[in-house]
Amino acid sequence: MSRLVYGVHPVKEALKAGRVHALFVLEGDTGTALREVTDAARVANVQPVLRSRFALDALAHGGVHQGAVAVTGEYPYAQLDELLAVAKRAGKPPLILVLDSVQDPMNLGALLRTAHVIGAHGIVIARDRAVAVTPTVVKASAGASEHMRVALVTNIARALEELKAAGLWIVGAVAGGGQNPWQIDFKVACALVLGAEGKGIRPLVLRGCDLLVQIPMTGKVASLNVGAAGAILLYEAARQRA
Amino acid sequence: MSRLVYGVHPVKEALKAGRVHALFVLEGDTGTALREVTDAARVANVQPVLRSRFALDALAHGGVHQGAVAVTGEYPYAQLDELLAVAKRAGKPPLILVLDSVQDPMNLGALLRTAHVIGAHGIVIARDRAVAVTPTVVKASAGASEHMRVALVTNIARALEELKAAGLWIVGAVAGGGQNPWQIDFKVACALVLGAEGKGIRPLVLRGCDLLVQIPMTGKVASLNVGAAGAILLYEAARQRA
Repeated sequence: MSRLVYGVHPVKEALKAGRVHALFVLEGDTGTALREVTDAARVANVQPVLRSRFALDALAHGGVHQGAVAVTGEYPYAQLDELLAVAKRAGKPPLILVLDSVQDPMNLGALLRTAHVIGAHGIVIARDRAVAVTPTVVKASAGASEHMRVALVTNIARALEELKAAGLWIVGAVAGGGQNPWQIDFKVACALVLGAEGKGIRPLVLRGCDLLVQIPMTGKVASLNVGAAGAILLYEAARQRA
Repeated sequence: MSRLVYGVHPVKEALKAGRVHALFVLEGDTGTALREVTDAARVANVQPVLRSRFALDALAHGGVHQGAVAVTGEYPYAQLDELLAVAKRAGKPPLILVLDSVQDPMNLGALLRTAHVIGAHGIVIARDRAVAVTPTVVKASAGASEHMRVALVTNIARALEELKAAGLWIVGAVAGGGQNPWQIDFKVACALVLGAEGKGIRPLVLRGCDLLVQIPMTGKVASLNVGAAGAILLYEAARQRA
């Protein structure tokens, strides 16, 4: 099944990743943002088709397309071992992000973007308990979804067992009862598990964690947004690895 | 002028902050979320008025109110020296977040929440170049806006001069040409300046910075979301101060 990608950044990144089957851009637009899209299309050897704003609105089903809509192949979910292979090719101990029941597409998109920029090697999400990589997620990730490997697994707890068998330490993020981030050794092969906002990591998944990490918090509002928590912990890993 | 606050968390935090003049909650709702709101209302001595979903939808102008809408006083913006006084009361060197032209309400809300949770002492935004603390911002901050002091200034560059005069180091976040976060001393009194996504800090404001900091990035998507960048740098400050 093909899928839609829209917005200047997402379409550009999908073009760079060589995934675009058809490209529609706004007719009569001479802005620099769209020119970047057509430049990327030229490099990718994809000829843009000009369409009216009305036609693009209909194509994007009301999404904010910024004058660029692409039809791409199905989202190429990866297998767990492909995520580990990414780390191996980079010559680094794996750093994998595991999302237990993150259901907000904006949060998944933000985490994909941060994980890609910070240098994580892949993301694991559950098939039925989380949002898949939809056009909204691609847009919220600024196109990082087109470069990041995402594994869609049936069972997060079982995926953690597989990652352990591959030599990774499993670090679960909790709101209480964990160690400070700088006390955890993120330099070794590891997977960072984040739970749904409010509920946290589910008990069965939590039991699969080797270590628990907790971001020190002050203030009267109890918790961080999962996107902010993920950014902080991925940065801590990158800091230790630098 | 009074303002509206809606959503379970924002209304609860506004009640805790003693700012609610009138409270409307969904009639016939027996869920635990709304019970938390009415419990907070009892503590704050505010009697909730029951309203239909239709009436609440109209009150919140279509915002996602989750059955709770409050009328509060005007947003109590602070003066710059009040932000410094917060740090003084806490017995800590000031850590102030300065936002140059951050115009997305979701980003401002996210940064307010993170800054509050991480323990920053205040936020500075520009009167005309940034989004103000609207109901959307309050909602995105999960109510942290009701506890965090926000100074609305006419001129960011001049505000930085005032902060310097008060002994703060001004650290500007840039996408290139800055030091690694862990090489900056955040233990001293300092202000962290973040620019608008994509454009970064404006040249005039950048000239007012003493130090430049850069989050190390890999990957093909060039930049972090300003909410993620803010979370990372505020965490680095908190880590050093722990």
